[in-house]
Amino acid sequence: MKKNDIRTFGIVGGDKRQLFLGKSISDSCCDVIMGGFDKLQSTGALTLADVKTAVLESDAVIFPLPSVRGDSSINTPFSDRTVILDKEEQSSLIHKPVFVAMKDKFLRAYPSLADARVFDYAARDEFAILNALPTAEGALECAIREYEGTISGSRCLITGFGRIGKILAKTLRALDAEVTVSARRQDDFAYISALGYKAENTSALKSVRGYDIVFNTVPALIFDRALLMNTDTNTFIIDLASLPGGVDFEAAHKFNIDAVRALSLPGKCAPKIAGQIIKTTVFTIIEEVYG
Amino acid sequence: MKKNDIRTFGIVGGDKRQLFLGKSISDSCCDVIMGGFDKLQSTGALTLADVKTAVLESDAVIFPLPSVRGDSSINTPFSDRTVILDKEEQSSLIHKPVFVAMKDKFLRAYPSLADARVFDYAARDEFAILNALPTAEGALECAIREYEGTISGSRCLITGFGRIGKILAKTLRALDAEVTVSARRQDDFAYISALGYKAENTSALKSVRGYDIVFNTVPALIFDRALLMNTDTNTFIIDLASLPGGVDFEAAHKFNIDAVRALSLPGKCAPKIAGQIIKTTVFTIIEEVYG
Amino acid sequence: MKKNDIRTFGIVGGDKRQLFLGKSISDSCCDVIMGGFDKLQSTGALTLADVKTAVLESDAVIFPLPSVRGDSSINTPFSDRTVILDKEEQSSLIHKPVFVAMKDKFLRAYPSLADARVFDYAARDEFAILNALPTAEGALECAIREYEGTISGSRCLITGFGRIGKILAKTLRALDAEVTVSARRQDDFAYISALGYKAENTSALKSVRGYDIVFNTVPALIFDRALLMNTDTNTFIIDLASLPGGVDFEAAHKFNIDAVRALSLPGKCAPKIAGQIIKTTVFTIIEEVYG
Amino acid sequence: MKKNDIRTFGIVGGDKRQLFLGKSISDSCCDVIMGGFDKLQSTGALTLADVKTAVLESDAVIFPLPSVRGDSSINTPFSDRTVILDKEEQSSLIHKPVFVAMKDKFLRAYPSLADARVFDYAARDEFAILNALPTAEGALECAIREYEGTISGSRCLITGFGRIGKILAKTLRALDAEVTVSARRQDDFAYISALGYKAENTSALKSVRGYDIVFNTVPALIFDRALLMNTDTNTFIIDLASLPGGVDFEAAHKFNIDAVRALSLPGKCAPKIAGQIIKTTVFTIIEEVYG
Repeated sequence: MKKNDIRTFGIVGGDKRQLFLGKSISDSCCDVIMGGFDKLQSTGALTLADVKTAVLESDAVIFPLPSVRGDSSINTPFSDRTVILDKEEQSSLIHKPVFVAMKDKFLRAYPSLADARVFDYAARDEFAILNALPTAEGALECAIREYEGTISGSRCLITGFGRIGKILAKTLRALDAEVTVSARRQDDFAYISALGYKAENTSALKSVRGYDIVFNTVPALIFDRALLMNTDTNTFIIDLASLPGGVDFEAAHKFNIDAVRALSLPGKCAPKIAGQIIKTTVFTIIEEVYG
Repeated sequence: MKKNDIRTFGIVGGDKRQLFLGKSISDSCCDVIMGGFDKLQSTGALTLADVKTAVLESDAVIFPLPSVRGDSSINTPFSDRTVILDKEEQSSLIHKPVFVAMKDKFLRAYPSLADARVFDYAARDEFAILNALPTAEGALECAIREYEGTISGSRCLITGFGRIGKILAKTLRALDAEVTVSARRQDDFAYISALGYKAENTSALKSVRGYDIVFNTVPALIFDRALLMNTDTNTFIIDLASLPGGVDFEAAHKFNIDAVRALSLPGKCAPKIAGQIIKTTVFTIIEEVYG
Repeated sequence: MKKNDIRTFGIVGGDKRQLFLGKSISDSCCDVIMGGFDKLQSTGALTLADVKTAVLESDAVIFPLPSVRGDSSINTPFSDRTVILDKEEQSSLIHKPVFVAMKDKFLRAYPSLADARVFDYAARDEFAILNALPTAEGALECAIREYEGTISGSRCLITGFGRIGKILAKTLRALDAEVTVSARRQDDFAYISALGYKAENTSALKSVRGYDIVFNTVPALIFDRALLMNTDTNTFIIDLASLPGGVDFEAAHKFNIDAVRALSLPGKCAPKIAGQIIKTTVFTIIEEVYG
Repeated sequence: MKKNDIRTFGIVGGDKRQLFLGKSISDSCCDVIMGGFDKLQSTGALTLADVKTAVLESDAVIFPLPSVRGDSSINTPFSDRTVILDKEEQSSLIHKPVFVAMKDKFLRAYPSLADARVFDYAARDEFAILNALPTAEGALECAIREYEGTISGSRCLITGFGRIGKILAKTLRALDAEVTVSARRQDDFAYISALGYKAENTSALKSVRGYDIVFNTVPALIFDRALLMNTDTNTFIIDLASLPGGVDFEAAHKFNIDAVRALSLPGKCAPKIAGQIIKTTVFTIIEEVYG
């Protein structure tokens, strides 16, 4: 199969992001058949069909983020039906590229596809990097909304200098916050300094004093009982780390520290960009594998 | 009276901003008596009292923004009572500095104070300039929340290059938006260019094409039926101009253009800073008049 | 005369800026005849002629910045000759728009033109504002070159919040300097704060401590003997104010404080932009008067 | 040996950077003996001595960048003598930490030190990252000085998204340039996009059109004859790549393209920071090895 053989994409399930994904593909190059959007009457130029048509009549199929639910059904928030791929659909998928998020879970639900060309777009590094931008903007939105001062002039601590930490630090600094980033590696400390932020050592974080807002990006229990006990009570904490997150919310509540969880921000704050990022990633995979 | 004679401030009515105002004064120099906050149990170190005490026992009194309602009562959202200043209170106010927002309306409600030292802090230029920062951040929050793409990379038009336009343009640019500002004066065009934005002439605005988000700051009906008819339908409009605003919302709805009104942003998004700005302005007046 | 009647511009005298001015006009709309550039062999598509041709054969004439020297000759650094406008040339100029810098001086040299349409483009507010950008970049260049640290992290004081102060503050902040601006007016203080800088009161400047680099933009002797005596010796001062400037250089030398004068930066650092700014200003005048 | 046993540092040879290094160490913690600075009369609080004293009387010795010349002599631009370490000095160095730049070359010159604790601070990743900041500022200085427009509004291409590319892109963007970065890897493309720059593929660079300034950071012959033949003639190229660099200067000259080499910028533009970076790196090594 060559990339030019892919003329029609099936998009099965998902939320607004998949609508923008469909629109973006449709605008640029290929036909798109949307399946699993029964609640919608129309979506502009996109063809709305049933799931079977979207799977059978397409050359490649894109599933949403996440792709399947706990009961093996496809994640279809725009449909009231429970969508489980039947034999015919599974057979059809074996012969075409299939793009999913969380491949392991998808294959546990549909083991017959174990030998199919199933690609996990959400596991790609560039997917996570591109999503760091809408995540950072979403975190900023949360901070403006919840924090009682302005971002300008606020003292912000970002724990972690990975993808989100890098983009978020730039965003906050651009709004004239005083930005401190905590990290663990010497090269990260050097970048933090060269980019004009202050640095702290995550490993040595025994207290959090003198910060107005803290953004946690580390997927580990950084803000445990002990650290929260040594955190200023007027500090506002936003936990951006994927579940189980990095904050002991119970302890935070007990110590009177405001803390909120902010997850899935790209889909919530910028579904259009989030959809385009899925498209970019899927097409990069196609270029690499079928180009 | 000399500025050092003002040892106790009465703060009568208002929302969270006045609480932060009280805290800020209390932290820096003077005693504070809060009146008209019956719904609150306690507010940290601040003395909660009734309105009479706050008026009579203080050396200067600060009323909220706005100060009075249509029925001449003081604007007291944190109290269920209707607070009307009685004779005794009015007599007391005649002999001390009184700080209000919208002095005309206040004096219409309390004509006995016509000869008192009543200062309108909200009418000061620096008050409006300082509030442009939380307004800009609030507008940004609204844009991140409502617009389906990211601010980074979005094409933004700001109509008007006054206080809010100046700060908002900087804010959006800092987040990597493409910023165009419309203005009318040659010196504004020059600043717009020197600051790296693109310029349009507000007077010549016959259509609005190629923008993702429009922020109106001009308090005049810029976006009337005719202009909206020539505006891209996927443009998102945020009207920041004080009432009656600058957008014909009915026409916008008819032409399928998303438009929202965003008012009183400092109080909503950053009550702490908004309170400190009232303090800064009041103290500047005191310095000028009693310094 | 209508603006469309101006088909050919004479550009008489000047440096590189006038070459870029000529190119910019020639690229956009009109013919250009350059006079007073004898040292040059060719300048791309521009017509090089003698001064007489440039004056007589054009519909409007632009003189350089400054336009005349002390001896009434035209400022022609690209010519070895002394160019004095003769009777014929003066008569010709009476009937066409003449654009000069420092009109008073020009008319003292050529009183016969007192009744001609002589416009001073350099006196326009937007001319000065537009030039603030190349001035700020030139000041930055000087600071990077001369100061022994990086701009990022340096503590900078800008005295004055006029055109140059506004743009320079933004430029330095963009490079992660800590920026303090001194001003005198309440509205300036408010803007300085809303834009995220620290503020000082120029009138109360008794000492300059804790700054690495100082940029003076105030055309008055701010840095006199008394203030320099109370300035850190490792402070580097760049005086951007037009002559006589704002620094007592003799005293600075005596107190071992590094201080330099940086003048005419647009012409030195960005002659292309400086030429385009002359064009923009001249065309704005034409639009206003003949449009 | 423990880190606290290092009480006196010998600093042997080098330029202004080593003076600031000495001052920085002396200010923070330890005694410093400077050797190989005969041309200087005094350097503030620093002890100037001969090389022998600096080597023998210290607990650790820091050599400059580069440490040795082609003739095995120490790089001592502030001395007229040729400094070759004698037997006694070499024996002394065997028993203490020795910090050099370009260890291989140093050990070829002094093979007797093969078993000594010789650390190459200039080979450390964080050393290069920290130096990217003064390098970027130096490149900016060069661009402002040499390019005839302003950086604001200029179209800049940076080839390479390594340490210098990352910091330089941020710096140019902060000054309102339009920034395009060329890279080769998908994760780099994703970061380039998330940070708001445009991307090009270095491998596919067949022509360079529509750029005002190009900064090459790739240490490979990117701008060869073929590419330069397809580069706009009014493009200004700054080659930041270490020798032999990335530009065929002869071909550039032939095609009338302005191109300059800009090397060793930290030492030239910001010797103070460059010295502090050496200190930071040396102390990080000490912490790791003797901490």
